[in-house]
Amino acid sequence: MRIDILSAVPELLESPLNHSIIKRAINKGLAEIHIHNIRDYTLDKHKKIDDYAFGFSAGMVMQIEPIDRLITHLKSEREYDEVIYTSPDGEVFDQPMANSMSLLNNVIILCGHYKGIDHRIREHLITKEISVGDFVLTGGELAACIMADAVIRLIPGAMSDVESALSDSFQDNLLAPPIYSRPAEYKGWRVPDILLSGNEAKVKEWEYEQALARTKLLRPDLLKK
Amino acid sequence: MRIDILSAVPELLESPLNHSIIKRAINKGLAEIHIHNIRDYTLDKHKKIDDYAFGFSAGMVMQIEPIDRLITHLKSEREYDEVIYTSPDGEVFDQPMANSMSLLNNVIILCGHYKGIDHRIREHLITKEISVGDFVLTGGELAACIMADAVIRLIPGAMSDVESALSDSFQDNLLAPPIYSRPAEYKGWRVPDILLSGNEAKVKEWEYEQALARTKLLRPDLLKK
Repeated sequence: MRIDILSAVPELLESPLNHSIIKRAINKGLAEIHIHNIRDYTLDKHKKIDDYAFGFSAGMVMQIEPIDRLITHLKSEREYDEVIYTSPDGEVFDQPMANSMSLLNNVIILCGHYKGIDHRIREHLITKEISVGDFVLTGGELAACIMADAVIRLIPGAMSDVESALSDSFQDNLLAPPIYSRPAEYKGWRVPDILLSGNEAKVKEWEYEQALARTKLLRPDLLKK
Repeated sequence: MRIDILSAVPELLESPLNHSIIKRAINKGLAEIHIHNIRDYTLDKHKKIDDYAFGFSAGMVMQIEPIDRLITHLKSEREYDEVIYTSPDGEVFDQPMANSMSLLNNVIILCGHYKGIDHRIREHLITKEISVGDFVLTGGELAACIMADAVIRLIPGAMSDVESALSDSFQDNLLAPPIYSRPAEYKGWRVPDILLSGNEAKVKEWEYEQALARTKLLRPDLLKK
């Protein structure tokens, strides 16, 4: 899978995409992430890519021309399954969406910054708008990192332990059960006895009951899906 | 406002917290972000902070002792309003939560990694669990960056243009209206005439109508809040 991320502040993206599972997946050849600086595609001699909004709104708007030039350049090199814009207006990103995205070959993610992007980009160049939640960020870069992380870890071979992804929260519409590690007692706080029993059937039953109880308590909406 | 972020992979956090509005807010003295490596608080000579889960689950669990030692150390230096754990089980992060968090003084954010953290940490040390959405990430680091970004930009003075934050999506339960910038015509795609009219009252009316129509179409749930 190849992800091209288009940003006005590409330095924001460096460290999250250069460590941990994402880095490992890239090193193994399972994923490619290419970060593009939109400023490299402006014809403006001062590398300016934003301007005032038409009308009377405050805040700067990312202009259509450099973004169109960059997307056109990428599309001339390969076919893209989606050209995604990270926006609070978009379809809400969740685990089923991450699952389907992990099956795509080539994806562009355009990160908005400043007040947003010229609406004509959204009308004519973007194929899918995705929101990571009902909050406003400085820019779409963190949203793009979240999508890349959630998606790339699902590519077979990216994680060292396939079980680990399949048993995550949301994959079965249940929250994960409580987990514990050594020491069995710390400051008087003990691990539940059942987990120390060595009885696998009983442990699995307890884990399922706990997962169900936690989901009923904390996220009953998941059980209705 | 001071945010202490506790992580097993602190290098992930470098670039998102070192640029753009967050960096500016820090430079202006409006916010402090301190990143702590949990490994610095383990007594293990190999700096190990995770171990196998009790029971039969796959995946490694972050142990209680180093995290307890780090949180205890921080609490000995100042009072914290919240000790937050980023978890898909938590209360869903949204703009009202970002607004209230921006009023706090001292906050700890613990980032889970690997399969998760020893449940006793959540029972005894964490005061609030927050989820950034219904998806699973490699770790809580990106979630912590999202919270820090969404919250810090709201601190008065962090953004160059206060208007810009107040007119964002969600602040009034409406999505933002479309915005446009130069050129007025690009590849035959024209900016709506009304925005070029210079009639402020008409433009504001159009923007409100557009915001309402977009919200009705894309996020009718916001209008019921």
